[in-house]
Amino acid sequence: MSDQKLTFDDFQPGLRFALGPRSITAAEIIDFAREFDPQPMHLDEAAGRASILGGLAASGWHTSALFMRMMAESFLLNSFSQGAPGVDFMEWRKPVLAGDTLSGHSTVMETRQLRSRPGIGMVKFRHEVLNQKAELVCRAENSIMFVMRETLEKTA
Amino acid sequence: MSDQKLTFDDFQPGLRFALGPRSITAAEIIDFAREFDPQPMHLDEAAGRASILGGLAASGWHTSALFMRMMAESFLLNSFSQGAPGVDFMEWRKPVLAGDTLSGHSTVMETRQLRSRPGIGMVKFRHEVLNQKAELVCRAENSIMFVMRETLEKTA
Repeated sequence: MSDQKLTFDDFQPGLRFALGPRSITAAEIIDFAREFDPQPMHLDEAAGRASILGGLAASGWHTSALFMRMMAESFLLNSFSQGAPGVDFMEWRKPVLAGDTLSGHSTVMETRQLRSRPGIGMVKFRHEVLNQKAELVCRAENSIMFVMRETLEKTA
Repeated sequence: MSDQKLTFDDFQPGLRFALGPRSITAAEIIDFAREFDPQPMHLDEAAGRASILGGLAASGWHTSALFMRMMAESFLLNSFSQGAPGVDFMEWRKPVLAGDTLSGHSTVMETRQLRSRPGIGMVKFRHEVLNQKAELVCRAENSIMFVMRETLEKTA
């Protein structure tokens, strides 16, 4: 156990973590789409241009997965995370196109101890992902579970 | 244009589409996690067993991406889908473990024409994904855009 790893107690409302930057290529968009979302606008440049997305566009689920990766690198891998029970909402506000570079931030909104799981607390975040033009491409809120510091001290 | 492909007009409240079945392997769980969610419980059997997930468990985003794939195969690839603006909520109710087989259904809740995008309508779905023990592992609601039949007839 490292003293530096974040516990529930370290997440105070207003605390903000930077996400990214992370670029996305046409090949990555097509690979993800082939496996998980093989709709034409995610597989083919011409089909993307003909759709309301306006170009070869990442599946919303691909954008969400990249957001997850940025969150892991930003703070989750340096924490006692216990995973998340879901997503309160996720908005795909603008298309993410081949060549875009994503960045953003996750901000702590509120925290609470869990009665159902002693020793674990829930942290609610607001997440925003922007492209290189500072346009909001994805917005979400969700809660993530973290081990409480006193639990670690008891079992140390 | 095939007459068989579903337009907005074909989605009536109560209509239900079967999803899956689709199995998930340990190698797939680890591959997805390495790329998008490299937390220990998604990468390693022992770390998974030590976590509240109880075994090598898929990232919730992996479960969501597989749900997307099942939805594409069930009805989206046979439709005039124009993509989705997001997810109203998504709950990861139980861990999805290596060897699990997922199935489920997407049910039309309501439909409405879009004032902002003439010729396109929005269909709201409730989605449920179950494992081979008929346990609910994932539940979500979201809306998907489809071209209206009259738009196709005008441009045919």
